[in-house]
Amino acid sequence: MTSTLILLRHGNSDWNQKNLFTGWVDVRLSEQGIAEAKRAGELLAESGLAPEILYTSVLTRAIQTANLALEVADRLWIPVKRSWRLNERHYGALQGLDKAETLEKYGPELFQTWRRSFDTPPPPLADDAEYSQVGDERYADLADAELPRTESLKLVIDRMLPYWHSDITQDLGAGKTVLVTAHGNSLRALVKHLDGISDEDIAELNIPTGIPLVYELDDAFQPTGPGAYLDPEAAEAGAAAVAAQGKK
Amino acid sequence: MTSTLILLRHGNSDWNQKNLFTGWVDVRLSEQGIAEAKRAGELLAESGLAPEILYTSVLTRAIQTANLALEVADRLWIPVKRSWRLNERHYGALQGLDKAETLEKYGPELFQTWRRSFDTPPPPLADDAEYSQVGDERYADLADAELPRTESLKLVIDRMLPYWHSDITQDLGAGKTVLVTAHGNSLRALVKHLDGISDEDIAELNIPTGIPLVYELDDAFQPTGPGAYLDPEAAEAGAAAVAAQGKK
Repeated sequence: MTSTLILLRHGNSDWNQKNLFTGWVDVRLSEQGIAEAKRAGELLAESGLAPEILYTSVLTRAIQTANLALEVADRLWIPVKRSWRLNERHYGALQGLDKAETLEKYGPELFQTWRRSFDTPPPPLADDAEYSQVGDERYADLADAELPRTESLKLVIDRMLPYWHSDITQDLGAGKTVLVTAHGNSLRALVKHLDGISDEDIAELNIPTGIPLVYELDDAFQPTGPGAYLDPEAAEAGAAAVAAQGKK
Repeated sequence: MTSTLILLRHGNSDWNQKNLFTGWVDVRLSEQGIAEAKRAGELLAESGLAPEILYTSVLTRAIQTANLALEVADRLWIPVKRSWRLNERHYGALQGLDKAETLEKYGPELFQTWRRSFDTPPPPLADDAEYSQVGDERYADLADAELPRTESLKLVIDRMLPYWHSDITQDLGAGKTVLVTAHGNSLRALVKHLDGISDEDIAELNIPTGIPLVYELDDAFQPTGPGAYLDPEAAEAGAAAVAAQGKK
């Protein structure tokens, strides 16, 4: 039996707009992001794909994206599960900093390492820093050691994959069409796993915002073919735009 | 240990606007209903009450209300459970009919019986009727005998209370602040249970739209005092407006 997995990266946020590192800071969608989410809902509706269960991170911008898309697709009523394990990569001490200023201050090499290195996290965020998540009620159930102060992509994989195995694949295994609405790096982590991308090559993978990416999975939860964007042309342009962010 | 229960009736819908019987027909909020939901979110935020888990029906207008209110209150990230057991009363063969025309055709006595009788349901809706829910994917898990074709308030209580006991009280028992976003009649059913209102007196109870109603419950899930609306003045005017609908 095959099942269908739909991945959706949230759209442009207020802090994308302002060119700030976001990570776990709980910012909202910008007007552009809201439009992207609605467009994702139209693409879902046109595709005939009907998500039967929704997974989201616990970050508002991903939840807004899911709510807007499902409202347009007329499937707001499906069950929802949320987990911090689908959150964006924690950006450590960079959270809240201006990207252009950071690039200028630390130089292109360190900047690019922090953005795209597989296993080098940025410096950790202090617990008393303005944008720390220590004390945030939504993470109250996490052991202190589980709550990240910074993350590399490798660390994102380490905390995301257990949830893939424990929860998401359970619903896929029951034959359900699953929608995962999350973030650039938690989705890169999942795509790396699904497509067997190497630690080196994953640096080049950019997931565009607001365009559903569809996988058919076999009963071992392996893709039966390449993932397909519902709007391939827009996806290509979107991925190029994401890639260009690091090259300003 | 006490816990806090917050009840929220969804706001004005497209079909309220058009003066049609709605029931289980999955219509959306009107612009007015969207404004009411946002206002509910402001009231929640101002009150300092912080819902820790959300319960909704599987009808879009209740889910939209919850999403809008929680977005304003900055608590979109809380866990969500949905159940058909929190749906509006099924209005039987009246679903989709114009209220004024129905009043004219059947007379005020029958009309008022259908609207407010405790245990006399309207005539059942035919399975092949335009607004039947037979075949609706969201009810696929229900046994055919469980799927209503019409309901009295008594029948709403009969299908709602098991969910109160099995699920909602579990979260209350864990000390959580629970938000239930639902409908005029599923909430009347719950308030009847909480306040011990008689089968006769419940006819006079009207719950206004869009104004959170807050109960403190003891560890037997009984109210420690009367439920309190977060905006008592608006609630009084709203309840009077609901009552007046039946008297046009």
